[in-house]
Amino acid sequence: MKKNLEPVYYGDYLQLDRLLSAQSLQSSRYGEAAHEETLFIIVHQVYELWFKQILHELNSIIDVFSEQEVKDQQLTTVVHRLKRVISIQELLNDQIGVMETMSPQEFLAFRDYLVPASGFQSIQFKMLEICLGLKREFRIDFDKQSFYNRLEQSDRDFLENLEKKDSLFELTQKWLERLPLLEFGKFRFWELYRTATRQMLEHDEQIIRNNPTLSDKELRQELKELDNTRETFDALWDKEKFSLWQEQGQFRLSQKALLAALFINQYNEEPLFNLPYQFITCLTEIDEKLTLWRYRHAMMVQRMLGGKIGTGGSSGHEYLKRTTESNRIFKDFFNMSTFLLPKAALPELPAEVRSKLGFSLS
Amino acid sequence: MKKNLEPVYYGDYLQLDRLLSAQSLQSSRYGEAAHEETLFIIVHQVYELWFKQILHELNSIIDVFSEQEVKDQQLTTVVHRLKRVISIQELLNDQIGVMETMSPQEFLAFRDYLVPASGFQSIQFKMLEICLGLKREFRIDFDKQSFYNRLEQSDRDFLENLEKKDSLFELTQKWLERLPLLEFGKFRFWELYRTATRQMLEHDEQIIRNNPTLSDKELRQELKELDNTRETFDALWDKEKFSLWQEQGQFRLSQKALLAALFINQYNEEPLFNLPYQFITCLTEIDEKLTLWRYRHAMMVQRMLGGKIGTGGSSGHEYLKRTTESNRIFKDFFNMSTFLLPKAALPELPAEVRSKLGFSLS
Amino acid sequence: MKKNLEPVYYGDYLQLDRLLSAQSLQSSRYGEAAHEETLFIIVHQVYELWFKQILHELNSIIDVFSEQEVKDQQLTTVVHRLKRVISIQELLNDQIGVMETMSPQEFLAFRDYLVPASGFQSIQFKMLEICLGLKREFRIDFDKQSFYNRLEQSDRDFLENLEKKDSLFELTQKWLERLPLLEFGKFRFWELYRTATRQMLEHDEQIIRNNPTLSDKELRQELKELDNTRETFDALWDKEKFSLWQEQGQFRLSQKALLAALFINQYNEEPLFNLPYQFITCLTEIDEKLTLWRYRHAMMVQRMLGGKIGTGGSSGHEYLKRTTESNRIFKDFFNMSTFLLPKAALPELPAEVRSKLGFSLS
Amino acid sequence: MKKNLEPVYYGDYLQLDRLLSAQSLQSSRYGEAAHEETLFIIVHQVYELWFKQILHELNSIIDVFSEQEVKDQQLTTVVHRLKRVISIQELLNDQIGVMETMSPQEFLAFRDYLVPASGFQSIQFKMLEICLGLKREFRIDFDKQSFYNRLEQSDRDFLENLEKKDSLFELTQKWLERLPLLEFGKFRFWELYRTATRQMLEHDEQIIRNNPTLSDKELRQELKELDNTRETFDALWDKEKFSLWQEQGQFRLSQKALLAALFINQYNEEPLFNLPYQFITCLTEIDEKLTLWRYRHAMMVQRMLGGKIGTGGSSGHEYLKRTTESNRIFKDFFNMSTFLLPKAALPELPAEVRSKLGFSLS
Repeated sequence: MKKNLEPVYYGDYLQLDRLLSAQSLQSSRYGEAAHEETLFIIVHQVYELWFKQILHELNSIIDVFSEQEVKDQQLTTVVHRLKRVISIQELLNDQIGVMETMSPQEFLAFRDYLVPASGFQSIQFKMLEICLGLKREFRIDFDKQSFYNRLEQSDRDFLENLEKKDSLFELTQKWLERLPLLEFGKFRFWELYRTATRQMLEHDEQIIRNNPTLSDKELRQELKELDNTRETFDALWDKEKFSLWQEQGQFRLSQKALLAALFINQYNEEPLFNLPYQFITCLTEIDEKLTLWRYRHAMMVQRMLGGKIGTGGSSGHEYLKRTTESNRIFKDFFNMSTFLLPKAALPELPAEVRSKLGFSLS
Repeated sequence: MKKNLEPVYYGDYLQLDRLLSAQSLQSSRYGEAAHEETLFIIVHQVYELWFKQILHELNSIIDVFSEQEVKDQQLTTVVHRLKRVISIQELLNDQIGVMETMSPQEFLAFRDYLVPASGFQSIQFKMLEICLGLKREFRIDFDKQSFYNRLEQSDRDFLENLEKKDSLFELTQKWLERLPLLEFGKFRFWELYRTATRQMLEHDEQIIRNNPTLSDKELRQELKELDNTRETFDALWDKEKFSLWQEQGQFRLSQKALLAALFINQYNEEPLFNLPYQFITCLTEIDEKLTLWRYRHAMMVQRMLGGKIGTGGSSGHEYLKRTTESNRIFKDFFNMSTFLLPKAALPELPAEVRSKLGFSLS
Repeated sequence: MKKNLEPVYYGDYLQLDRLLSAQSLQSSRYGEAAHEETLFIIVHQVYELWFKQILHELNSIIDVFSEQEVKDQQLTTVVHRLKRVISIQELLNDQIGVMETMSPQEFLAFRDYLVPASGFQSIQFKMLEICLGLKREFRIDFDKQSFYNRLEQSDRDFLENLEKKDSLFELTQKWLERLPLLEFGKFRFWELYRTATRQMLEHDEQIIRNNPTLSDKELRQELKELDNTRETFDALWDKEKFSLWQEQGQFRLSQKALLAALFINQYNEEPLFNLPYQFITCLTEIDEKLTLWRYRHAMMVQRMLGGKIGTGGSSGHEYLKRTTESNRIFKDFFNMSTFLLPKAALPELPAEVRSKLGFSLS
Repeated sequence: MKKNLEPVYYGDYLQLDRLLSAQSLQSSRYGEAAHEETLFIIVHQVYELWFKQILHELNSIIDVFSEQEVKDQQLTTVVHRLKRVISIQELLNDQIGVMETMSPQEFLAFRDYLVPASGFQSIQFKMLEICLGLKREFRIDFDKQSFYNRLEQSDRDFLENLEKKDSLFELTQKWLERLPLLEFGKFRFWELYRTATRQMLEHDEQIIRNNPTLSDKELRQELKELDNTRETFDALWDKEKFSLWQEQGQFRLSQKALLAALFINQYNEEPLFNLPYQFITCLTEIDEKLTLWRYRHAMMVQRMLGGKIGTGGSSGHEYLKRTTESNRIFKDFFNMSTFLLPKAALPELPAEVRSKLGFSLS
């Protein structure tokens, strides 16, 4: 089979003729070449190549989770690939430092020629957001209206179709809901858990009340926030309350999925939970790295433009900042600690439950 | 002179006996040692060592700028040391990744024993903020009241005294005001500059009006922001307007200092401006890295605690987020691009002015 | 129990009075303070704090592996902690960049006062090497004689005692040898494996022979190296040959342990192997990061001293370079790829074997 | 002029249709797509895009230095661009971490299809080496014969032509030789310098002889190395000796250029030397980062292939390791510390010389 392989050459294989001739300066078209425009183009092209790679990984993972059952062997692969995505994201974040070697003045030398091109027109970045789960209903108001309005019709149709498919967020939710983690026979796990959390919150209240460094105003505020936390806890076990909070955007995951994720988190050292826990942790980290990228990107745009408008004919950095926090997708994982108990306070699992969680090399 | 040097040994020189015995776990005191408390202590100790180093650099720079005149040779040293500070800040930012290898649950195993200790009690970090220029009047309201309220009286006195001294911000401002950059004899630089900016802003307005991708609402918003930018520009050359904006927190630097910084920025390639430009750029970067640290730190605290209270008996991450943006010190440098002109649009300097800016190796 | 906790203050908890007063400049003792000596001290103190943390992790892992049996739950913890070590190592490597902000000339201002202190006297670094497995027999000749000769007798005794205990290398080897992975009943796994490798090597020979870009000399050399690889493979299944190669330093692990590691590597997607594979990968990465640190450290020393002698009264960088490669501990893991087969060429495992490797959440 | 600008769209501007369709898997051609081949292609394409950017910067710098005179204003730009190159190199080095998320086994799934493509065929990387100054005469023997032997004739011709032009190394050397730094009228700078170095070396000898931790053998070795350093020093001021050492590869720069670089280094705080010193430091750092890249790259290849042959039909990592150290271009800058004196030992410059080195903002 392998006998008739044709010889491959480095430059042909990487299609370097196409790749390295794809940098045409707008500045050269209208006047003298602006030295830094090459950097500007190449930085963005590298971003797009990495976006392609991230989409390649995410799509392969979406395929796995679209099946009826996710096998453990597949989960190994999924975690491996998510770690690769994180590793790429670290590069993307550091790459902002390379862009920042272009001074604002150097950018001004060709900014006008690029109108109205804008990073908001990156289809791959929008695909990436949609694939992860940033669908219309979660976008901030400004984003809802502007997400599509700089795109051509065909691109818009393509993305709107993509929005109809299950994203990684939805697939993760379904997978969590399917996990048979929460059926314990007669063992009333969540009742015990609830009692433990009540004790923890009472203890927290004592800490606040005994804190001599708080002013009266601060004390009142802290106690109010604690009441908030108490209510959030109550919602965990109350379907109606939960739906209410969910509508207000407090939670994104369904109650069932959230409880499953919480259980995995609490008992993450159990071998059976090793891969699911890694999976959840990876998604949290991808979200965190994306948030960080948005933040650094917004800072960079501000430094580059100040109050000036960008090439897209609008002042980008204000918008970018607004999306930094709100576009977080797996925020329930990120806020999970609210509900965590210290190991020592965890209800002891009965032997029959524990035995289901372990396995052994011998 | 050097003959009578006593031999030095590695461990004695670094005082390792003190350093390596300074980790006492609170968890061991009340129960079983929590494995991760060692990490928690060491991460914070490393932070404090680096803070000491940064203060060492900043104080040496404050000394230089407290003199009547700053010699160029000294400016070389100052820039060199600021770059070292930036290099340390990169470590500090990455170090958050090490802290994040502690899971929220691992933190819960000893959190209760640390009450009410809190990072807000780091005297060195507050010194660092004050030395850079984050004085009372610039702090956000919440910070104004809480900056001192967890400290012992002696520490409070010490810091309040420090606030009375000139910070790097104030010294930089004075130095910029002293620079004889803006006296050009008959050459009306700023008048020409003003004309050029008006043309630039008119051009920007055309770009916005011709942008087909903007909705009506967006169009109105963009034009409003442009008007804002116009007004900001006008303030640059209008003492009264400037004072007004300054009171509202739009600017922190004095008008004179801001114009000097702007001039340096515009002509940064001139050899004479090389060091001053590097100096300004370093300060901007230190601010940016500090902002990024605050942001990552706030994210880390949120991930660790969720809605729970921290050891200081309050929910830290909300506060931390609020200070992220507002505690920026050299924000006028950061926003400088608002006022920059493209090189091609710059008023040409007369030969007599240019000759003052150059020097030559031959 | 928790009622009577005493309040904790930040500075006391971190023992900042000791920590921040432990920087005494030698230069101040004999003359004017050298500004950069503070940096020099603090960089080394931070290194020592991180070394303490790494030793804390390694010792906890050595404890786990010193038990008769390693439970899977423990392996989760072990991998988690090794990843923390890696994360610290990344900081250590980047920290060299901070040291490099000290120019050679700045170092010369206090170098003479430090004689004969030397990094070779860091007990913790030697502990770290010994704990990982860099024992006397593996050290290069130069290192054998000099490892101890700058230390005081008590330190020397302490380390020599440590050498007598099982290191992580030895414990890993024993654990691998204990794994019941290689007993397959009638299934002749290794025989099939051997056949597959022979085919692979024959294929490689074809590739070499058909490579038109090789000169005659290169061709001969490549074929010779292939023969070498063939012999290495043969040794894998031949106890005597293996011992011979082992004596020559080609292998460090025992034959049995190496085969177990190879098997885990080949079938790393199997859920049962997930943690063992991560464990092996972490050890490889720790070794790689340590090698990289040595290399960067040697470069830094060379840049700082050139051909000059260091404070220890010897020219360090030559020595440092010599140890970079040779002091690799888990080099068999690092070279494992030699023996890997492509997945498609792997012998198919019988159902009874496979079933032992899988487990399922449902 | 700017009125008739045509509107620009993001995807068109970046030529994303070409860019994102330039990834064709060899594995798909002959069988099932290997998931990781996409990563393999994209990682290499990103490398090539960055190489293009680095060449863009280097060529612009070569243009500057090819002129008869380098103005200080140009030196500002040159240093700015070299810092950008360094910033890109940091990404290139970190990018190896992304490649390492591909396991050796994953690579084996498509390795055979790539024969005989090889990174040695990257024309841009060879251009980069040649532009920096890695010309035929400096390459190691193995490299001399193999540098061209995998290339097509047209590529070979192109590179051989490039070798005939002045590289950055040669241009830097000429620029250093041209600097009028070393003419001091009656002031016998180098004589004083020589005396000072002799005293320093005598002092070093005392340190070695008084070092109680050295064995007899080590003592002899250290003294021998000191003699070596003495001889190197002597060569600095002896044309014939210098030529001899240069032929043996001890030095690459001419004597005159080396002395100029040394002088700049010694008095780097003088404003006049700020830019030249930064220039030299940047070149040193580029070399260091390239060396580090080679080292990490060789480690990665070893981890991926072990003793197996690579796609180029040869075992790459041994070759890669051999070039790591030897292909250093600006090694004289790197070893400069050998010749540095502590500031306190420097000959005092007469007022007339000093005055030429300073300039002032006031």
